Amino acid sequence: MAEALVLHEDPRSGNCYKIRLTAALLGLPLDARAYDIMQGETRTPEFLARVNANGRIPVLQIGAGEGAQFLPESNAACWYLAHGSALIPADRFAQADMLRWMFFEQYNHEPNVATLRFWMRFVGEANLSDAQRGQIEAKRTAGSAALALMDQHLADRAFFCGDAVSLADLVLFPYTNVAGEGGFTMGAYPHILAWIARIAALPGFVPMD
Amino acid sequence: MAEALVLHEDPRSGNCYKIRLTAALLGLPLDARAYDIMQGETRTPEFLARVNANGRIPVLQIGAGEGAQFLPESNAACWYLAHGSALIPADRFAQADMLRWMFFEQYNHEPNVATLRFWMRFVGEANLSDAQRGQIEAKRTAGSAALALMDQHLADRAFFCGDAVSLADLVLFPYTNVAGEGGFTMGAYPHILAWIARIAALPGFVPMD
Repeated sequence: MAEALVLHEDPRSGNCYKIRLTAALLGLPLDARAYDIMQGETRTPEFLARVNANGRIPVLQIGAGEGAQFLPESNAACWYLAHGSALIPADRFAQADMLRWMFFEQYNHEPNVATLRFWMRFVGEANLSDAQRGQIEAKRTAGSAALALMDQHLADRAFFCGDAVSLADLVLFPYTNVAGEGGFTMGAYPHILAWIARIAALPGFVPMD
Repeated sequence: MAEALVLHEDPRSGNCYKIRLTAALLGLPLDARAYDIMQGETRTPEFLARVNANGRIPVLQIGAGEGAQFLPESNAACWYLAHGSALIPADRFAQADMLRWMFFEQYNHEPNVATLRFWMRFVGEANLSDAQRGQIEAKRTAGSAALALMDQHLADRAFFCGDAVSLADLVLFPYTNVAGEGGFTMGAYPHILAWIARIAALPGFVPMD
């Protein structure tokens, strides 16, 4: 019998949605436990000791009780869920190339596209610190470059790694799909918009809360 | 016969060294082609068209001529090289947990620990822009938190994922080992220092240039 899966999450987080989307496409049942990161609920001593010493969500919990295992980092959780499925290509180069886009997502995309969306939508531009305000322009430039690279890559491909959907698509989808909330002009990226429509049409697709 | 491997790199980059270290521990021959990122050599039209549209190094080239394949992102290149080796645990949870530390490296560690080292050692504090200067304190705090989390994790482990060295260790090693150049006080992290000594003692280990 498969072990119970519990997602420790904030439903507003695109990083959490990646995992829910992956589980949905795989048909895996996933329980959820919600935390409010704005209220510091992932920095309590109990959370740090048991769930994630890094004080962050999402964390995928596998199993229950004493033997439960906890897996932080959204992309690693998606990898765990997709183990042995068609969402991870078996070919050596294709698998590494898929991970290439997953690392790109964490380094080039999320800190710019997702952070600006968080600042603009949830913190509010008027409430930003001077240090944050000083980063807006650089994050706008880097986020736009990440989106432009994705658009160029998708010009002659249906999905990021060849002809089939993979984890690369699923981890890039959440924050790309809400990038407009961070002030990015998505009409400039027609191939991304066509790819978003393809993802949303996948059997089993679930939208972000 | 194995295909030729060429690393497109800047020898001063810890991201490039990750790949050379992984290849050395695996006994894989690796040719190198050097670029000077400070001179914009990875932003030329030829580089963008053929090697990496993202204008970054390292890129691992597999094969030569028309059929050559190019793999950006240092951690993806390490994954390609280590395919089928003991550097990637086969167990489902252990493999995902190893990737968890590799994503942590790209999101929590590299943008803080490596960036401060680049600014302090190669750009020079006096030459930083106001926007960069405004980020020093946040990067110092986040980088110190990443190092503290690593130190805590290593308190009762020889390596990041259990008893054997894995890619998680090899991708975290380069910028951790030179974190002092970015102003981090490494004496505060005794378990990291012991782990650095264990990595440096591995058969086949090569130092950074």
